[in-house]
Amino acid sequence: MSEFRRDPVIGRWVIITTDRSRRPSDFIKECETEPEKVCPFCPGNEKMTPPSILVYNGEKHSDDSSKWSLRVVPNKYPALAVEGSLERQGEGMYDKISGIGAHEVIIESPDHNKGTGDLSDEHINDIFRAFRERILDLKRDIRFEYIIVFKNSGKAAGANLSHPHSQLIATPIIPRRVKGEMKGSLSYYEYKERCIFCDIIREEMSSASRIITENSDFVAFCPFASRSPFEVWVLPKNHGSHFESINDNDISKLSSIMKDVLKKLGKVLDNPPFNYTIHNSPLKEPNLPYYHWHIEIIPKLIQVAGFEWGTGFFINPTPPEEAAAALRESE
Amino acid sequence: MSEFRRDPVIGRWVIITTDRSRRPSDFIKECETEPEKVCPFCPGNEKMTPPSILVYNGEKHSDDSSKWSLRVVPNKYPALAVEGSLERQGEGMYDKISGIGAHEVIIESPDHNKGTGDLSDEHINDIFRAFRERILDLKRDIRFEYIIVFKNSGKAAGANLSHPHSQLIATPIIPRRVKGEMKGSLSYYEYKERCIFCDIIREEMSSASRIITENSDFVAFCPFASRSPFEVWVLPKNHGSHFESINDNDISKLSSIMKDVLKKLGKVLDNPPFNYTIHNSPLKEPNLPYYHWHIEIIPKLIQVAGFEWGTGFFINPTPPEEAAAALRESE
Repeated sequence: MSEFRRDPVIGRWVIITTDRSRRPSDFIKECETEPEKVCPFCPGNEKMTPPSILVYNGEKHSDDSSKWSLRVVPNKYPALAVEGSLERQGEGMYDKISGIGAHEVIIESPDHNKGTGDLSDEHINDIFRAFRERILDLKRDIRFEYIIVFKNSGKAAGANLSHPHSQLIATPIIPRRVKGEMKGSLSYYEYKERCIFCDIIREEMSSASRIITENSDFVAFCPFASRSPFEVWVLPKNHGSHFESINDNDISKLSSIMKDVLKKLGKVLDNPPFNYTIHNSPLKEPNLPYYHWHIEIIPKLIQVAGFEWGTGFFINPTPPEEAAAALRESE
Repeated sequence: MSEFRRDPVIGRWVIITTDRSRRPSDFIKECETEPEKVCPFCPGNEKMTPPSILVYNGEKHSDDSSKWSLRVVPNKYPALAVEGSLERQGEGMYDKISGIGAHEVIIESPDHNKGTGDLSDEHINDIFRAFRERILDLKRDIRFEYIIVFKNSGKAAGANLSHPHSQLIATPIIPRRVKGEMKGSLSYYEYKERCIFCDIIREEMSSASRIITENSDFVAFCPFASRSPFEVWVLPKNHGSHFESINDNDISKLSSIMKDVLKKLGKVLDNPPFNYTIHNSPLKEPNLPYYHWHIEIIPKLIQVAGFEWGTGFFINPTPPEEAAAALRESE
């Protein structure tokens, strides 16, 4: 059983996993290169994962390896457990919450070696359709306040398995980072009566120097205050606070721009490790005029070091204008 | 010339270095193992660094390699420049500040291969004395609001050179993370009329399960809400808000506990890469009853991945109670 623990000074929650705890020797071993084991996400090995929650082009819980094009399964080693009741309690002067949540893996395709940029447009549609479907389903569980959808690609970006996959975690608390975004965008809205992200889109499209690519419904650019070289944000041009409210046309346009951006990053940076996360509104919020869902992509090119840990701000050696130009110009 | 840029939503400042910008090919090259070049921090190579600002057991600006035991030099590739005036300006809807600051390197010893834990007690004293001396000197520059002292050890922790060194950066703005700590501890003080860190020390010493080691003036433990496996905090037992106010006795006790903790981490985790940072009060604050300077040490054992980037909270697979027990029991 894991638990949420709160740093009493800064209010940051961490998840401490107590049941599958890692001893010092686990970390030492990890530095050595391990031989690639049998991939639990490849067709034929479906029994190595828990039974699927969602399957495209096949049957749910089906073992027929020849059929599925995408599977969603519970994470075999979840950071949070679905079963159990949500309990808040003190421990001395500290605060903790039982580690309730959902942790799922989206196995994006049967092909072990195809990155998102290599898949067909229709197949990428399925990935974003699966995100939407899972959020809409999990949203019905009233214990959950937030769902984060993210992809770690490459070992340096935290991926333990190389078969293309993404993950989602539903949590009973709203993460601090999300609260910060909501607070910042609300305060802008109260002052200007405009969505700050809509203003950012207008600013970027008018100055153009940080734009990478766009289509009728989405725009991709390197943000003005990029934390890391080649950071990319992808925003819907039309205001919307909840990712899960997007329609099939939006999904098709999102897939198309994501494919384009990931291909460009792969080409310019020689297939770098990367993370992307969907920044979304908390589950129980209604449509919000001040928040605008979007995707943030961070290639893992530099180490986050002491300065960043100690201050929370970042040193970025590549101006976003230069990064955007390099990405814009690549085919 | 670098600049500070502010994320308009979350209020996070980043430093964008525009003069020594890194192109895509720099990142690709970096993945390959480079041969160890001539070390600019080793005795005999003093001319490879800018002239020293501070030298122990030798003469300032001296080229006599046989004499110095510790040198402080300006960073040859500084993130911020000392020369220039501090200008705040807008760029469209965004905010930026000229990249003014100081960026210095503390070359901890002439010995290329000795980690902090391998140095004599007296030599470690010198490192902390140098931190104090540089902060007291830079504090006189009224443009600076904060000084962060940090050490990156090992390539995975962001160190580009393996010769033992630490760094300091003086900034004209108070970092967001520091503001968060000040705000959190002030709000606790307003409620309880006690310093939250003093309370944490009492709590940890009474429960004992997370204590690693202590001496008459300092205590080291794994914090309740550790972000990463084997995170360690070192706090002075007596309240003090400013690191630079510590006396020589404090320094000697601090050196002793830091040596002890770093040796234990090295032994238990096979010399892991790590970062430590001194968490200190902003320069212009008077003595504060609510903030308590301390050191946070984070071994680099797991990758910060999409979940952490997207939410700001962390998944830690090693409970601090187990980490503390392993460190406590090692000689």
